[in-house]
Amino acid sequence: MDVRGEIIEIAQKAKKAATVLSRLSSAAKERVLLNMADEIQRQGAALIRENGKDLEYARTIGLSEAMQDRLTLKDTVISSMAAGLREVAMLPDPVGKVTSMWRRPNNLLVGKMRIPLGVIGIIYESRPNVTVDAAALCLKSGNAVILRGGSEAIHSNLAIAGILQDCLKKEGIHEGAVQVIARTEREAVYEMLQLEEYIDLIIPRGGEDLIRAVVSQSKIPVIKHYKGVCHVYVDESADLEMAFNICMNAKAQRPAVCNAMETLLVHRNIAPSFLPEMAKRYQEAGVTLKGCARTKEILPMVEEAAEKDWSAEYLDLVLAIRIVDDMDQAIDHIGQYGSLHTESIVTQDYARSQRFLHEVNSSTVLINASTRFSDGFELGLGAEIGISTTKLHAFGPMGLEELTTTKFIIYGNGQLRS
Amino acid sequence: MDVRGEIIEIAQKAKKAATVLSRLSSAAKERVLLNMADEIQRQGAALIRENGKDLEYARTIGLSEAMQDRLTLKDTVISSMAAGLREVAMLPDPVGKVTSMWRRPNNLLVGKMRIPLGVIGIIYESRPNVTVDAAALCLKSGNAVILRGGSEAIHSNLAIAGILQDCLKKEGIHEGAVQVIARTEREAVYEMLQLEEYIDLIIPRGGEDLIRAVVSQSKIPVIKHYKGVCHVYVDESADLEMAFNICMNAKAQRPAVCNAMETLLVHRNIAPSFLPEMAKRYQEAGVTLKGCARTKEILPMVEEAAEKDWSAEYLDLVLAIRIVDDMDQAIDHIGQYGSLHTESIVTQDYARSQRFLHEVNSSTVLINASTRFSDGFELGLGAEIGISTTKLHAFGPMGLEELTTTKFIIYGNGQLRS
Repeated sequence: MDVRGEIIEIAQKAKKAATVLSRLSSAAKERVLLNMADEIQRQGAALIRENGKDLEYARTIGLSEAMQDRLTLKDTVISSMAAGLREVAMLPDPVGKVTSMWRRPNNLLVGKMRIPLGVIGIIYESRPNVTVDAAALCLKSGNAVILRGGSEAIHSNLAIAGILQDCLKKEGIHEGAVQVIARTEREAVYEMLQLEEYIDLIIPRGGEDLIRAVVSQSKIPVIKHYKGVCHVYVDESADLEMAFNICMNAKAQRPAVCNAMETLLVHRNIAPSFLPEMAKRYQEAGVTLKGCARTKEILPMVEEAAEKDWSAEYLDLVLAIRIVDDMDQAIDHIGQYGSLHTESIVTQDYARSQRFLHEVNSSTVLINASTRFSDGFELGLGAEIGISTTKLHAFGPMGLEELTTTKFIIYGNGQLRS
Repeated sequence: MDVRGEIIEIAQKAKKAATVLSRLSSAAKERVLLNMADEIQRQGAALIRENGKDLEYARTIGLSEAMQDRLTLKDTVISSMAAGLREVAMLPDPVGKVTSMWRRPNNLLVGKMRIPLGVIGIIYESRPNVTVDAAALCLKSGNAVILRGGSEAIHSNLAIAGILQDCLKKEGIHEGAVQVIARTEREAVYEMLQLEEYIDLIIPRGGEDLIRAVVSQSKIPVIKHYKGVCHVYVDESADLEMAFNICMNAKAQRPAVCNAMETLLVHRNIAPSFLPEMAKRYQEAGVTLKGCARTKEILPMVEEAAEKDWSAEYLDLVLAIRIVDDMDQAIDHIGQYGSLHTESIVTQDYARSQRFLHEVNSSTVLINASTRFSDGFELGLGAEIGISTTKLHAFGPMGLEELTTTKFIIYGNGQLRS
């Protein structure tokens, strides 16, 4: 069969499965997820063997060490995949929840009830554990999922899918519920993105290039995350020690992730007492600093920041620093250069804390806490399928509820419209 | 200036205004909306004069009587526009509402707060009152709006926009808050749909062709409503008189709208007692019936329904009738031919009422009530900007809340991630 035909067949199967899944009991979903955890663990050795084929290929094409590392399945990764399945199994089922209900003057009782989105397509790069995580979250929220991982991980992904499908079969759930696309051609992604008739949502997970390509090709709604240029603003009233700790944690605790700070904004009145000690601590932690002209007056040794630094997502131990006249300038800077991801203020001033919270409309706004908390698990969503930096449907970290929508349910007793 | 340049300028102005609007107090929004109501009323004669130019042009190009009727501004329409503005002014402000809040084990207090979407583009056909309605709802929800009405209504729309902008000016609100595109070329719409950098959401209001064209051209998320093929299922246990009334109301009370019933599904056991009397009533109301083969056994005079009738949106006094073996067949029929809009069951059976409510995943599902209640005002949303038949962001009638999104707000006291 040609690529197009094969992808359409997968999508049709998924749509059939979605109807079944939307009516599946919470107990059945829990049971199959726990069984999947057991089987992933039990067949770990076989998975590692299949993963070996991907690793061998990765070496022959000269994939970077970092990428090979992300691709590798070992006992600890297998265990954490199984643990992830068990965690998702135990989360509350979002489907069927009535989020609100009210009575109309004509006695109609009107409510909103959560239902699955239907079929979700996930397009991602070389980490095979995404296959398990995404399948678990989609299944728990009653959605069928079509997974399209990178070609580097194809043996691993197909082996994982095989295990998950056996578990579905054992529970009598339609095999279309979790499918991995075996075709590694780019054309397969393109064809998938045309099928608005069958697929309700596309979530791309990976670098900005992957995401922009998906957005430009897709006829299906895409929830996207271009980049995270996160800011911490240290207000003149900040507690100095708290500011040191938050700024260090936000930058250096895990610099390669999207919720790490990329630009530090400092009120001019606190800069002379804050920056020298902060710079010393950053130096000890191996963080390279770039600063605006005023920053260089206080820290003459730092490199001068160029215009492009203000919108850079370094994902590394590099930080841009700018001194601002006041909070308004900080908020304007965030509005101009930010990516609507995550911003934090460090302040002891009540009025300014409130104003920052209201006036900054990024997806996550914090007072006196590290930007690194912008994460589904950390915020208490129970899980995370991704972080959205666009405002439609979901904004910020997305948990199970964001994989559902609501329908209106109406109880009447013969009401007519006049 | 060329079309593209002009549209970009409009979009940039709108984005500037959006920042201002997102911070505007509820009192200021209320004040400006009430003032707009007064001015629309006060300048009604001038509006009717401008509308005269559109009507003259409409006659010269031979626009249908029905379209001319929709286009006409007269005293009653002016009054209802003003009344609409006053109603929206009095609705609760959705912006700033904290929809939920919880404490994490590390004492972070995490909440979700409603914020405006930003800039909304509305593309619509010849009814000038949409200009007022849409502007009011966007303003109330803190969004800037770019309005692109049909060329037939351009004089009316520009006159309305002039009045609204004067009111904005009086309140000191950036003029980009409400803008009507003066360019009537199609190119203007195309250019607008490319500006994902400035515009957050597109809502097309009009026929299916308009909407499909918008979806295929847009880089911006579109909330869409293709069509309403709504069903009533009369169960074997239905109260006959209630079924007669609901089926009459759903079909004939206002047949030209999307929430009118288009297909009637009848349980085979109740068909012999239900259909003859129902058909008599429909005949008296001037409704033309088309039926399946089994329907024709009971109602030999009706025309036989063709396959295409099951997915037809008649928007007229025409109804397709199908007899089904049981509720499952009714639900399958809805799944196969429906448009995810609105479906109702008439039943006195408790278990079946619950099962229909859970298993039918259209945007509005009713028990023992007319499909005509699928409407923002009727459901108590206070207003309606449109009805979405796709699941992302909003599903079903959309009120003010659907013109907002939520951001995470987090109160900390120095928390770091470990």
